[in-house]
Amino acid sequence: MTLNSATPAFIDTLRAGLSDASFREAEPRYLEEPRGRWQGQGVVLAPDDVDGVAHVVRACAEAGVPVVPYGGGTGLVGGQIAPDGPVPVILSLERMRAVRGIWPEENVMVVEAGAILQDIHDAAEAAGRLFPLSIAAKGSARLGGLLGTNAGGVNVLRYGNARDLCLGLEAVLPDGRIWHGLKRLRKDNTGYDLRNLLIGSEGTLGVITAAALKLYPRAHGEGTALMVVEGPRAALDLLALARDHLGEGVSAFEIMHRQGLEFLAETLPEIRQPFDEMPEWFVLIDVGLARGLDPAAALEALFAEAFEAGLVSDGMIAQSEAQRHAFWEVREQIPEANRRIGSVSSHDISLPMSEVPAFITRGAGVIAGIGEFRINCFGHLGDGNLHYNVFPMPGRARADHVAERDAIKRAVHDLVHEMGGSVSAEHGIGRLKVEDLERYGDPVKLDAMRSIKAALDPQGIMNPGAVLAR
Amino acid sequence: MTLNSATPAFIDTLRAGLSDASFREAEPRYLEEPRGRWQGQGVVLAPDDVDGVAHVVRACAEAGVPVVPYGGGTGLVGGQIAPDGPVPVILSLERMRAVRGIWPEENVMVVEAGAILQDIHDAAEAAGRLFPLSIAAKGSARLGGLLGTNAGGVNVLRYGNARDLCLGLEAVLPDGRIWHGLKRLRKDNTGYDLRNLLIGSEGTLGVITAAALKLYPRAHGEGTALMVVEGPRAALDLLALARDHLGEGVSAFEIMHRQGLEFLAETLPEIRQPFDEMPEWFVLIDVGLARGLDPAAALEALFAEAFEAGLVSDGMIAQSEAQRHAFWEVREQIPEANRRIGSVSSHDISLPMSEVPAFITRGAGVIAGIGEFRINCFGHLGDGNLHYNVFPMPGRARADHVAERDAIKRAVHDLVHEMGGSVSAEHGIGRLKVEDLERYGDPVKLDAMRSIKAALDPQGIMNPGAVLAR
Repeated sequence: MTLNSATPAFIDTLRAGLSDASFREAEPRYLEEPRGRWQGQGVVLAPDDVDGVAHVVRACAEAGVPVVPYGGGTGLVGGQIAPDGPVPVILSLERMRAVRGIWPEENVMVVEAGAILQDIHDAAEAAGRLFPLSIAAKGSARLGGLLGTNAGGVNVLRYGNARDLCLGLEAVLPDGRIWHGLKRLRKDNTGYDLRNLLIGSEGTLGVITAAALKLYPRAHGEGTALMVVEGPRAALDLLALARDHLGEGVSAFEIMHRQGLEFLAETLPEIRQPFDEMPEWFVLIDVGLARGLDPAAALEALFAEAFEAGLVSDGMIAQSEAQRHAFWEVREQIPEANRRIGSVSSHDISLPMSEVPAFITRGAGVIAGIGEFRINCFGHLGDGNLHYNVFPMPGRARADHVAERDAIKRAVHDLVHEMGGSVSAEHGIGRLKVEDLERYGDPVKLDAMRSIKAALDPQGIMNPGAVLAR
Repeated sequence: MTLNSATPAFIDTLRAGLSDASFREAEPRYLEEPRGRWQGQGVVLAPDDVDGVAHVVRACAEAGVPVVPYGGGTGLVGGQIAPDGPVPVILSLERMRAVRGIWPEENVMVVEAGAILQDIHDAAEAAGRLFPLSIAAKGSARLGGLLGTNAGGVNVLRYGNARDLCLGLEAVLPDGRIWHGLKRLRKDNTGYDLRNLLIGSEGTLGVITAAALKLYPRAHGEGTALMVVEGPRAALDLLALARDHLGEGVSAFEIMHRQGLEFLAETLPEIRQPFDEMPEWFVLIDVGLARGLDPAAALEALFAEAFEAGLVSDGMIAQSEAQRHAFWEVREQIPEANRRIGSVSSHDISLPMSEVPAFITRGAGVIAGIGEFRINCFGHLGDGNLHYNVFPMPGRARADHVAERDAIKRAVHDLVHEMGGSVSAEHGIGRLKVEDLERYGDPVKLDAMRSIKAALDPQGIMNPGAVLAR
């Protein structure tokens, strides 16, 4: 299907149905993405409400103009950027930020898609509840993007992905009609799961304008520990032990490698190093427990038993909120340290959890076969989700390794695929991984995706070039 | 699209790709459903493996023969029964029952679609894990049907529906191709959510042949209590209090009405009545707690605090497994007591939780406006899911009220819809509720469903007449 650019004349035709404030300057933030991989293009519209969104999409459908839904612009795979093709409407949800309602007794809130994640956290907390989805970009990421990409983050182990935290949606489909699906129901078996089809479709099947979100009771007591493990296998055994004792009380279980501590020491010396001597591997365990359980005591008991079983050799349990924060800062600043070092290639991958140790061993071998590199492998071990990043040796720069970049990426992804893993664990496909999806995706599933896309968006106006090749 | 009957000649053409054991007699169990509402028709095939399933579906696609996927036959909305139209192949998964693998350290098992739920429970338990999906028909319901209908049950409050408990699928799509999607991954954002599209599609988009299921750690201690509450509002407050204290430790929260106890006394006098004097409303609370918490003590503390707050007036906490079982039996035998009394109309509905008290009040008014009836309202309050059943007065029979049946159903469903609820909480649409879905479903969602159905199953061979009208 041939698409047409959003010309000034076309944009002018939209004025009848939109407030003046809906027409935005196409500032650089709309046209760049965090890693600077693409330069986008487009005309920015930010409607006041769902009717405004429907007005824009309907007009674009009639005129065959592409629509790129835009949230906080924090996506790492280029789903929010249209670098080429006809000039699209960049449809920003930023002016639809309202909490439409909160029902603490139901553990439900209804929020518009432009709401910033941190604001959603705050609104839930003010009602005595928890919205558990949490990612590093929570200060700027918006709900629509979090749902569009089925965002993950640090609490998936306990609470699931964005998909698991959503009960209902309001969305504008590619023909401009509004689906009113903002149900606050825990059980509703009335037809196909359009909600989960839109979540994670990265704006290619419609525009999410609001969602009914699941809330949770806040834990009575929270605690955090760092524990030194011999390696990933011991870390997995420690996780199993922790869950056997504390069940869903284990909120996060992050693995880190000495390489991360070294990068922190090199690039962010103000971050306090937690260990006198840097361990090879260590984990951060976060727990949130019911009334009657003391988190520090529970973590101490866990450590004692794990020590007895030979799973851990050293550890420290946070004795204050400040110390919890310090432990978490080590984890949360590693991506920034990585950025300052400058990776040759970085990978957001997941594996069947029991395959993680073998993957780490085999991955090191594969990389060594390509050249001499440093690997910083860390991440959400409790979800089998690793951030596996490959860096130049000291004294060399990423620019020295342009020639090897594709080979590294290909080798890592081939290995992940062979071991039953995913080449996009939590960031999505966007435009960056369209070829990866074609290479590694199940062909029957890909055909089904193409059929669904053609059925719901026959002109292909919604975020063309994202997820599926044009 | 015109479909063709599965003639003997057509069935004969399938022999090349199927074992002799795959050809079954069409015994009555395949052609009836639990409530005797329909008499089905069809030729029964039960392949050995996914290749056999693919062989059958491919041949049916080529010949335009309908396929009705068949699990345990326990569905309550006629999804498994084809009463009219061309004679279908009834595709039974009963011979595909294997546990293909179990990974306790990942909390994952891969099971074929013909496995019986109780056998899945047992296999998980043997590995020291819990598969939490549980429904009354667990002794005969099969995994494929549980997934096809996105089954709910008593533990949804804590662990979610079938959809929440599935990581990956293997399925045969309507063209006979196999989707190999048995991923054991907690995070995998590679394209549209075909898994959740198939789950709950009631066999209209393909045949699920195996699934990767989430397991959970087993609770350290479990406890059960019955507590007398003033009414549904107090029950909701009690649930909020319980979750504030025990978080995810609250596994089930069931509300029951005196009417249920009276029906039990009348039809199943061997069931021990839990209260000396039947209360108007009471709840069953089930908890499964982490190490270090005593369930009975936790329930006692909850009762004391709830009593202080005026939420409960009486209660009893199980002191043994036998007593827990006795408490649960009261809940689990109410459906059988209902069956013996014989309802005029029964409804599987859900509501936003905070609307439940108002619904119960308004529902009684609506029914009273139609005639004199007894109402037995009970169910999974923690999910906002009520079984709302209307019975004749003593001395009258359901046959006396045939004329009022449709009016009652319509009035209850209208009220549910008006209050933001669902007319099919956990049983699905099947053939029973196709008209309800057309009446109450969002028209934009319904159009999207029809588009998806046409895209994936252009001939309409998969379970024609279920979910969507032909």
